[in-house]
Amino acid sequence: MAMSERLDSTFAALADPTRRAILARLASGEASVLELSEPFAMTQPAISKHLKVLERAGLISRGRDAQRRPCRIEARPLAEANDWLESYRRLWQSNFRKLDAVLQELKSSPAKRAASKRKRR
Amino acid sequence: MAMSERLDSTFAALADPTRRAILARLASGEASVLELSEPFAMTQPAISKHLKVLERAGLISRGRDAQRRPCRIEARPLAEANDWLESYRRLWQSNFRKLDAVLQELKSSPAKRAASKRKRR
Repeated sequence: MAMSERLDSTFAALADPTRRAILARLASGEASVLELSEPFAMTQPAISKHLKVLERAGLISRGRDAQRRPCRIEARPLAEANDWLESYRRLWQSNFRKLDAVLQELKSSPAKRAASKRKRR
Repeated sequence: MAMSERLDSTFAALADPTRRAILARLASGEASVLELSEPFAMTQPAISKHLKVLERAGLISRGRDAQRRPCRIEARPLAEANDWLESYRRLWQSNFRKLDAVLQELKSSPAKRAASKRKRR
């Protein structure tokens, strides 16, 4: 898969609250489908569908143990999605800087600024 | 919209190469639908559909000028998606550390290690 297609399937897989919750659970260690389906109050087939989407996107891998087939989170697609978003960091950081400037301006109201000028003299 | 729903619509909007390319273009400044449709060799209605998805996700806003309605990128949903991914950073960073350790181990092959031991004596 080319990078652009990988980003398509990573972002599509992340666009669902259950799949994000599954990844959050797997971030603390491997789990079987049975173990995953318990906290989510979902049937195993419903969880299996979500796992297939995550597996196709490369966000999880499955163990070889035929009975249990434990799921493991795979960090690489998350790192690639993060890299893509990082290239926009300057946009939100410049917004934060503008907000900071406004807040500073509000804190040092004309009265305060005049007072601080008098002190400095 | 709750945070989880915002992440759903942000990630879904980002799961398309044209929409990511539109955001990349808008990161360097506002553009009208006409200006956006030119580099993409797409019709204006096709671009408009993508813009509606981006606008619903809050990733762009449209200007008030009735004729031109320039599109502007909005950084906040990108920052929120980035925050979500950042919580998994330790996963890929620990993978990188493991890889580094393996590379270091390969560099200092047994022969080299023996030589460096002899030098140190």
